[in-house]
Amino acid sequence: MINENVSAKDELHSFFYPQSVAVLGASENPKKLGNIQVKALLDGGFQGDIFPIHPTSNAIHGVKCYSSLQAVSHAVDLVIFCLSAHQIQQGLEQCVEKKVKAAIIFASGFSETGESGEKQQKQIADYAKKHGLRLLGPNCVGLVNTLNGLVGTFSPAVMSYPLSEQRAVGYVSQSGAFGVLTYMAAAQHGLTFNYFVSVGNEMDTSFEDVVEYMVHEKQTKVISGYLEGAKKPKKLRGLAYEALEKGKPIIVMKAGRGTAGKRAAASHTGSLAGSNDIYDAFFKQTGMIRANDYDEIISFSKLFLSGKLPTGRNTVIITSSGGRGINEADRCEANGLLIPKLNEETQRKIKQVIPSFASAANPIDLTAAASVSAPELFTAPLKALMEDPDVDNIILTEFPLFWDEETKELQEFVEMCKNTNKFVFVSTFPLEGMSIPKGQQYMVDHGVPVIPGNLQAISALAKLVEYSEKYRAYQKESVRERASIQKKENVAYLLQENQILSEWDASKVLQAYEIPTTKKSLATTVDEAVQQANSIGYPVVLKIDSKDILHKTEAGGIRLSLQNAEQVKQAFDDILLSAHKYHPDAHINGVMVQEMVAKGTEVIVGVTRDASFGPVIMFGLGGIFVEVFKDIAFRVAPITRQDALEMINEIKGKAIFDGVRGEEALDVEGIVDILLRVSSLVQDYDIEELDLNPIIVTEKCAKAVDALIVTSAAQTENMLARR
Amino acid sequence: MINENVSAKDELHSFFYPQSVAVLGASENPKKLGNIQVKALLDGGFQGDIFPIHPTSNAIHGVKCYSSLQAVSHAVDLVIFCLSAHQIQQGLEQCVEKKVKAAIIFASGFSETGESGEKQQKQIADYAKKHGLRLLGPNCVGLVNTLNGLVGTFSPAVMSYPLSEQRAVGYVSQSGAFGVLTYMAAAQHGLTFNYFVSVGNEMDTSFEDVVEYMVHEKQTKVISGYLEGAKKPKKLRGLAYEALEKGKPIIVMKAGRGTAGKRAAASHTGSLAGSNDIYDAFFKQTGMIRANDYDEIISFSKLFLSGKLPTGRNTVIITSSGGRGINEADRCEANGLLIPKLNEETQRKIKQVIPSFASAANPIDLTAAASVSAPELFTAPLKALMEDPDVDNIILTEFPLFWDEETKELQEFVEMCKNTNKFVFVSTFPLEGMSIPKGQQYMVDHGVPVIPGNLQAISALAKLVEYSEKYRAYQKESVRERASIQKKENVAYLLQENQILSEWDASKVLQAYEIPTTKKSLATTVDEAVQQANSIGYPVVLKIDSKDILHKTEAGGIRLSLQNAEQVKQAFDDILLSAHKYHPDAHINGVMVQEMVAKGTEVIVGVTRDASFGPVIMFGLGGIFVEVFKDIAFRVAPITRQDALEMINEIKGKAIFDGVRGEEALDVEGIVDILLRVSSLVQDYDIEELDLNPIIVTEKCAKAVDALIVTSAAQTENMLARR
Repeated sequence: MINENVSAKDELHSFFYPQSVAVLGASENPKKLGNIQVKALLDGGFQGDIFPIHPTSNAIHGVKCYSSLQAVSHAVDLVIFCLSAHQIQQGLEQCVEKKVKAAIIFASGFSETGESGEKQQKQIADYAKKHGLRLLGPNCVGLVNTLNGLVGTFSPAVMSYPLSEQRAVGYVSQSGAFGVLTYMAAAQHGLTFNYFVSVGNEMDTSFEDVVEYMVHEKQTKVISGYLEGAKKPKKLRGLAYEALEKGKPIIVMKAGRGTAGKRAAASHTGSLAGSNDIYDAFFKQTGMIRANDYDEIISFSKLFLSGKLPTGRNTVIITSSGGRGINEADRCEANGLLIPKLNEETQRKIKQVIPSFASAANPIDLTAAASVSAPELFTAPLKALMEDPDVDNIILTEFPLFWDEETKELQEFVEMCKNTNKFVFVSTFPLEGMSIPKGQQYMVDHGVPVIPGNLQAISALAKLVEYSEKYRAYQKESVRERASIQKKENVAYLLQENQILSEWDASKVLQAYEIPTTKKSLATTVDEAVQQANSIGYPVVLKIDSKDILHKTEAGGIRLSLQNAEQVKQAFDDILLSAHKYHPDAHINGVMVQEMVAKGTEVIVGVTRDASFGPVIMFGLGGIFVEVFKDIAFRVAPITRQDALEMINEIKGKAIFDGVRGEEALDVEGIVDILLRVSSLVQDYDIEELDLNPIIVTEKCAKAVDALIVTSAAQTENMLARR
Repeated sequence: MINENVSAKDELHSFFYPQSVAVLGASENPKKLGNIQVKALLDGGFQGDIFPIHPTSNAIHGVKCYSSLQAVSHAVDLVIFCLSAHQIQQGLEQCVEKKVKAAIIFASGFSETGESGEKQQKQIADYAKKHGLRLLGPNCVGLVNTLNGLVGTFSPAVMSYPLSEQRAVGYVSQSGAFGVLTYMAAAQHGLTFNYFVSVGNEMDTSFEDVVEYMVHEKQTKVISGYLEGAKKPKKLRGLAYEALEKGKPIIVMKAGRGTAGKRAAASHTGSLAGSNDIYDAFFKQTGMIRANDYDEIISFSKLFLSGKLPTGRNTVIITSSGGRGINEADRCEANGLLIPKLNEETQRKIKQVIPSFASAANPIDLTAAASVSAPELFTAPLKALMEDPDVDNIILTEFPLFWDEETKELQEFVEMCKNTNKFVFVSTFPLEGMSIPKGQQYMVDHGVPVIPGNLQAISALAKLVEYSEKYRAYQKESVRERASIQKKENVAYLLQENQILSEWDASKVLQAYEIPTTKKSLATTVDEAVQQANSIGYPVVLKIDSKDILHKTEAGGIRLSLQNAEQVKQAFDDILLSAHKYHPDAHINGVMVQEMVAKGTEVIVGVTRDASFGPVIMFGLGGIFVEVFKDIAFRVAPITRQDALEMINEIKGKAIFDGVRGEEALDVEGIVDILLRVSSLVQDYDIEELDLNPIIVTEKCAKAVDALIVTSAAQTENMLARR
């Protein structure tokens, strides 16, 4: 069990900045982990004390050994366990005795092997927790802090690359192998993480705990990671908002996009929600950036490190290769960026400073002249672009290779980039070793990113633009507000556990939350039905109401377009007869008399319950659209007003809300209102599934015409207490 | 003007396999093109004679010089022009006198600079054509044949990489810079093209000519290229089908995806067709493989070179990293491949040969044990997989690094791969220098591709599977058949140039091609209208018919659901009155009396004319779907039955044709039939735009309810002759 309420920020400090590290299981055999680990600490240049623990040896790699932890006279902050599974408990006891603060456990053979391993792991975790000892692992690759040389891992690959100058991207991984791969690939591209953490089985320190540490910690400007499944999704959500408020981006590669695992469900919403869709929604609503691969982690990090936020989507490409220019423009458009035509004034200014055979359109094509003989051409168009308010981003697809920090032109270029709110960066030709400008480091140091062309710099820019938009929106207090709807009456009696509500009962729940529904009433006699129809106004609809009859049409339980009392009488009798034939034992509440709603656009609002995230809200176009196009958007509850608007905007068919074929715009505010009220409802009660399908939207209003509510099998104490 | 009928296959041979090459403008100055070019031929080890032409020099780089072409006593097959634009004409005259067969012209300053350059280029091209001299360029980077060392380019980069052993991928580019980039990037990944051609301004030798040469030439197993716009699209189409028949894949990166350039048009179809959509359609229907970037050209080529065609989409991943396995599985699914669960029998067999802690599911996760200590585990599951008929493809995401051709296990692995129809390949860990197995070359030589992990091997596999499906379908004669519909009557009189047809006239055209439409007739008097309505059967629709009134609804020119003679009479009078008010001068043909069609699914079939490809056929879901979702598919006319089926299958909402909500499947055959008849129509006449919108499809039939036809502004002689 993981307690989501314990804050990790201080306790984890000993993992990253210990004054001293002991290696339990240190070895003289160079093939053994306990030997490699001692060497790694030395090679890393760890700045604190190192205490190899060995029963008999005097020194390993020239470092004095101690026969036991207790034999060390100094305090020990961190212990690295180079021991196998069965030796762990004994080691921990030594740690507790020595008042060690934190321990890294590499050993496998725990929860990943099955039930007995899981049990053993829990015993260890409980023991450590009881004694205030923090653990990383087991079944992990360890932890590296490249700022103080703490190489707490046996993985030799980590130390085989030179460190980059700027080290401000933290990385945390649920997969050891993928983590190491990412570390190495990043290093190959000149990006060294400041912190690298492999969390393994997360028996104590979770992915989220490490993210929390990095959110609160000042050396980390960008947080990145590899995630298979969040163990503490609520905590992660809170951290994501906190990071968004601070403007500290969280870039995560979430694996497991597979479509498998969509479950059979009574509602549309339930059957449409796959775990991957919900993660996608989670990322969108929290401003976390989803990377598709390790190389996106690298390029996104490099671009985000500049700390500058683009002002918009308008992007200008400066190139010396027409082909490359077209290609990058294609990529920009494919990623949602815009390649606007430059206005005449800007084109005129640019034409003054480039040769006649070059193009001042966008892309600005300087031709091979720039790369062959006139490197100064690359920066020539910049002044005009800086003066154009319609330009947000400028990409140089090549750059003079021999300019270095001594070059006056490079200094001027960097100065220009510093004094503008436009986002300027260099995406070099994607050739190893041939296309990195000499002045790269100087540019990067001054906030001008240089991204190798094979690293998909364009999708990185697109993500940064999206992040900037989200960041700016989030800074407005109003968009963070969550609906807090006071329900008009207590409907707990309807929402007992494990219930499928009849439509009449479901609509009582909706009414309590003031979710607009069709006018309706429940008639138990013909006379009541006629009276109610007269009062609602014709035409009306009659429907059987019974929680034993979910498929009303099949049961012959619906009559539409009833124009007068005579038709209502006939329909009432017919419905009861049909229903009885269909299901003789059904408990019949009565016959609902409903307003017949005018034509409009059908949408659906639904709720499903995700095993990790809890209630998830869905919005989509209804009717045939939801079935054939699956044009839907999800958000994890509770949602804000901004979330609701974004859901509606995410739909591919959203143009329909603006009114098609000359019709008026639809009541989007009405949909937002329903979404927020549903969000409130599922915060108050354990709803397993909910479908408002269809909701009819016209230019005047949005109104639920049918409702399905299924409550969860077991109400938690927490939920019951809230009522 | 480019004549599409001249075959290039023999004439281009002198470019690739000259017995002798002269360099016009050879120079002693090592910075000059004419010096670099001579050296490049020497460095390349060109196997024929080299004749530098220099007015005074005795030798350049030790090669004997000649004062003029005429001074060379041997025959000269190919001349490389290291001359600037104004010297070209004179050089060509020398070539003609010497009976040279082919010339490469690097110089820029021709059609790319504007009108006068274009004129000059045309003069040169005409001159050469008259004298039977083939030209490559101008404004190009030249040509390389790595099989005989003919380095016909000044670009030094091309020669700075070692040649790979297998050289069977030809490459042709419309961009010099992008071409060189691709050449170099490919070389960095161990792929050397056999032929590299930069076509420049294509004044004589076009992109298509080079493709033609490679289609007919035996050294080339895979054709690749970079295309901005096809100058001879019909020729390219023919070549693509020829290559598809031969099983020789054509992989092309088509740049210019931009959404700009969609034109204003009278029809839906016209406004929906962007040039990029039409290229996409062209690739799909011809079996050409579209690459999105230079690195896809490389990975696709590497995989396609194996010459083996996958049997299906079922893919098994063998990995030693759980994280990598999940990630590759995600990628497979995102690319339309399937990751099936292995059946119990296969899992049982696999479990017998892998450790208990490894997973026999799919991905098969051997854990780090395989990469650390037990490399033989990687191939252990293969036997069971080979015996499972539900497995099509097997990807090893890592492979024993130290196995080489001497290793018995590697030999056995290769043997196994040879003797199976399953597609097995290795996608190494994406780390430079660290993850390429020693035995790579041995595997590649024996048809087992090894693709670096950063080269997107999965999308390459997906493309190969698609290609295989297309190839197999194309081998069936029946799918290639194009409709040849005999029109029932000559409708040329209706389809004069520059006409907008009234609905009545348009429907006469449809009837001539036996395209099902609603029953209709044209009434000029009330009595005729009533008589016709009686004969068609009620309910009927009345519509004004005038080619001056396109927006019939706006003009009050439509009355629906007329139930009897009385209503028809009234409607007839109303319509004429409204139409007269709306447009007093309109020429009124009469009032159409139409059958009122029962409800069904609305689809749209349309035609637009593309500047390059000519008539393009569109299919999509109609009504609100076409406007909001733009759920449409294109194919270039003429189309085959298979094309028509693929169009219908391409629609996102295609599930609608299977019948939703328990309805019966719709008449897809009826839609196919209409598509083929429209294809015939646009082959016979110059149709500028056509919309059959809507076509109502039920389970029984597909029937056009409204039709718009616009003919082209100028009929070509060709077209007129055909009638």
